Amino acid sequence: MPDDFVVAPDLGQIEDEVLEALENDNAARIREILGHLHPSDAAELISRLPFSELRVAVFREVPDEQAGDVLDLLPEAVRSDLVEGLSTSELIEAVAEMAPDDAADLVTELEPEAREEVLEHIPAAQSEEIRELMQYPPDTAGGLMTPRYTALRSDMTVEQAVETLRRLADSDQEIIYYAYVVDDRERLLGVLSLRDLLLARSHQRVADVMNPNVLSVDVMTDREEVARMFDRYDFLAIPVVDAEKRLLGVVTVDDAIEVMQNEQSEDVQKMGGVQALEEPYMYASIGHLVRKRGLWLSGLFIGEMLTASAMAHYEDEIARAVVLALFVPLIISSGGNSGSQASTLVIRAMALGEVRAADWWRILRRELACGGLLGLLLGFIGFVRVHLWQYLGWVDYTPHYHLVGLTVAFSLVGVVLWGTLVGSMLPLLLRLLRLDPAAISAPFVATLADVTGLVIYFSVATLILGGTLL
Amino acid sequence: MPDDFVVAPDLGQIEDEVLEALENDNAARIREILGHLHPSDAAELISRLPFSELRVAVFREVPDEQAGDVLDLLPEAVRSDLVEGLSTSELIEAVAEMAPDDAADLVTELEPEAREEVLEHIPAAQSEEIRELMQYPPDTAGGLMTPRYTALRSDMTVEQAVETLRRLADSDQEIIYYAYVVDDRERLLGVLSLRDLLLARSHQRVADVMNPNVLSVDVMTDREEVARMFDRYDFLAIPVVDAEKRLLGVVTVDDAIEVMQNEQSEDVQKMGGVQALEEPYMYASIGHLVRKRGLWLSGLFIGEMLTASAMAHYEDEIARAVVLALFVPLIISSGGNSGSQASTLVIRAMALGEVRAADWWRILRRELACGGLLGLLLGFIGFVRVHLWQYLGWVDYTPHYHLVGLTVAFSLVGVVLWGTLVGSMLPLLLRLLRLDPAAISAPFVATLADVTGLVIYFSVATLILGGTLL
Repeated sequence: MPDDFVVAPDLGQIEDEVLEALENDNAARIREILGHLHPSDAAELISRLPFSELRVAVFREVPDEQAGDVLDLLPEAVRSDLVEGLSTSELIEAVAEMAPDDAADLVTELEPEAREEVLEHIPAAQSEEIRELMQYPPDTAGGLMTPRYTALRSDMTVEQAVETLRRLADSDQEIIYYAYVVDDRERLLGVLSLRDLLLARSHQRVADVMNPNVLSVDVMTDREEVARMFDRYDFLAIPVVDAEKRLLGVVTVDDAIEVMQNEQSEDVQKMGGVQALEEPYMYASIGHLVRKRGLWLSGLFIGEMLTASAMAHYEDEIARAVVLALFVPLIISSGGNSGSQASTLVIRAMALGEVRAADWWRILRRELACGGLLGLLLGFIGFVRVHLWQYLGWVDYTPHYHLVGLTVAFSLVGVVLWGTLVGSMLPLLLRLLRLDPAAISAPFVATLADVTGLVIYFSVATLILGGTLL
Repeated sequence: MPDDFVVAPDLGQIEDEVLEALENDNAARIREILGHLHPSDAAELISRLPFSELRVAVFREVPDEQAGDVLDLLPEAVRSDLVEGLSTSELIEAVAEMAPDDAADLVTELEPEAREEVLEHIPAAQSEEIRELMQYPPDTAGGLMTPRYTALRSDMTVEQAVETLRRLADSDQEIIYYAYVVDDRERLLGVLSLRDLLLARSHQRVADVMNPNVLSVDVMTDREEVARMFDRYDFLAIPVVDAEKRLLGVVTVDDAIEVMQNEQSEDVQKMGGVQALEEPYMYASIGHLVRKRGLWLSGLFIGEMLTASAMAHYEDEIARAVVLALFVPLIISSGGNSGSQASTLVIRAMALGEVRAADWWRILRRELACGGLLGLLLGFIGFVRVHLWQYLGWVDYTPHYHLVGLTVAFSLVGVVLWGTLVGSMLPLLLRLLRLDPAAISAPFVATLADVTGLVIYFSVATLILGGTLL
């Protein structure tokens, strides 16, 4: 990356400058602008450009040593579009500059023919590294790790270890804050931070200064779990091993942060009732956005049709007492809102690892208490509302407005309690079924609460108003 | 931290063992268990215990050198409760073991008298450090930084620099991956990673091996912005400077991760219609949970009362055509769902810095297109639904069921379009008003969409059904 890049630049303004330079065929100006951007910002700039021809034109001016990083940092959809615009030789050049884990991600996305062509034309050592990494599913520790760690032998002296590091550094090793000590079968024996190495005396043996209690993860560990370990134990890197404890690679904290952010986006989007987007919102096409939203939206709509059926079931009651219809949205929405609150709290607590499915009984008791109290609160407000409006003469809730008020109040207690229970228990149920708890979206809980809320409301009404209004 | 701690232990089982040991007054067993826990897990274990007496009893068995870390890692509510149960001398002992930034956070939470007593009884150098840190608001870079960075002079040789680091390491320095080079007025000149230092030759001068393009943040920078820089530029640490560019401290990546997680919890909870909890869900008292949810829930309820007023306004229409009431939940919920989708996407994109308020026009165009298409989709399904049920003879939607179907369809287009626009534009408006966009919760959008959806529905009905049913 450029040593003197501008931090948090105004990309809107830079985009305008780049567009102007493109219009004037001023490639030198574009190179100059890109020369002061961090690869992250260069990638974002390229993504913002409106057409893929423009993106390709700007990408061609990215300095060679950054092209790989920029390509890696592009959103997947933008990248695959860009890659189609590049010649195979340009692609090969960029891949050759990429870190092997990033290169593996990119190569995996290519069409089979392009994939083989790229792998054949990059240096053999690199293509072998990439082929090995491509074996691991992208959502595992193996899919996250870099194979370019620093390995030392335990019988080296500190001086020899430092010499080894010097050699590796010259060969463009990625490093890293730790060196790992392995035996002659590549099994992990210990870890040594660069700090330990720097502070040790040169004649000491690696075995004596290393920490033998090194923590590692299996290559097939889920990426979310790996990220949680970084969060919980403040690691900078975690070594990845196979079933025989042989060292295969290292996951670094920046990868873990990226996983956290992506998982978080996915959770938030699911909770909002949208299928997770693979690309940033602004770069998703309208068709893509509509598909990601339309599926859930029409699913919820079809579920919500049950309310029309439920209402039709109570059509006679409504015809006899139109006043009942007036409170339908108020009552059923309260169930949805309280359910959405409960599921949000439980889902987030599960995502942070604070709550497990086994805690369901403790959660149920808590939510029963909360739901009951909140239901009483709303029921009280609803009861007062009916009487106040009647008293002020704003609406005539029939001569039986006392009973109407009671119906509203009792229904609210039932609906809020029910919404809270459903909202808190459904994410736990999904976890037990090994599904993603975040799939319980606020709209889903609201839909469920709407249908059941209607049944609760009209049942309470039949009980209380039977013989008077009904 | 213990060198051989157990990773991701089963805290439920450990809790049972600890409770048993407490019952048998077996302090040695508790010490043994705690000896194998990472401070993060020890803190979680303590938080899980049901009474504060038990928490204090277990905390007393935490090894001295870990007590500070455990205290730091406790959720704020649990910690302040625990601290009340400790004697002042125990508290002083724990604070003396804490990193100065963590100690400052803890001391800030204490009652004024306790605060002074603690600060008077810990070593003077430490209490001065803490007092200095306490000046900075906790939500700034200053509130996150540690003042124990490693500073070198540019005219040192690499050998002298390594000697300096050795001395600092003996004095229990916190850092780390970078050493910072400052001039005689403590102004930041450059940065040197331990890797650079390790690979440099011992006679080289620090000035020649350091990177002079060091990035820093002002001490008053918002913590969220600091965290975003870590995410974007993959830093491990960022130096913090004052207005004269004097080095004051360093923020490390683990603090940044914690900020990200906390901000995300806050966003998710707000979006779910709950005020942000300060403590983990499981440790919040019922009363606290009810307050955090009750305020929003009753606020939304009062807003939703407008639906009852709107419905009352159309009472005559409903009485004349009860069939209209049947579709009320179906139609208004579609507005809420589409609005919730739109706001989720926009809020998340803003949180990741992908979208700025200035992009409102591009977003508006996108959402107009999406909302229109999604509205047509639901309108089509709704139209088919009415005709299908009528055809199958399941419900009788009056002889004018064609018109009823049209009313439903056109209302859906309007309601979904409107919900989408409101859901996408409100977060941007909040950002413009310098409020938190995440305060636009799904329940809030749903409530707004319910009220306006009713008006849209009955207006469309009056237009289409006027002269026939109405």
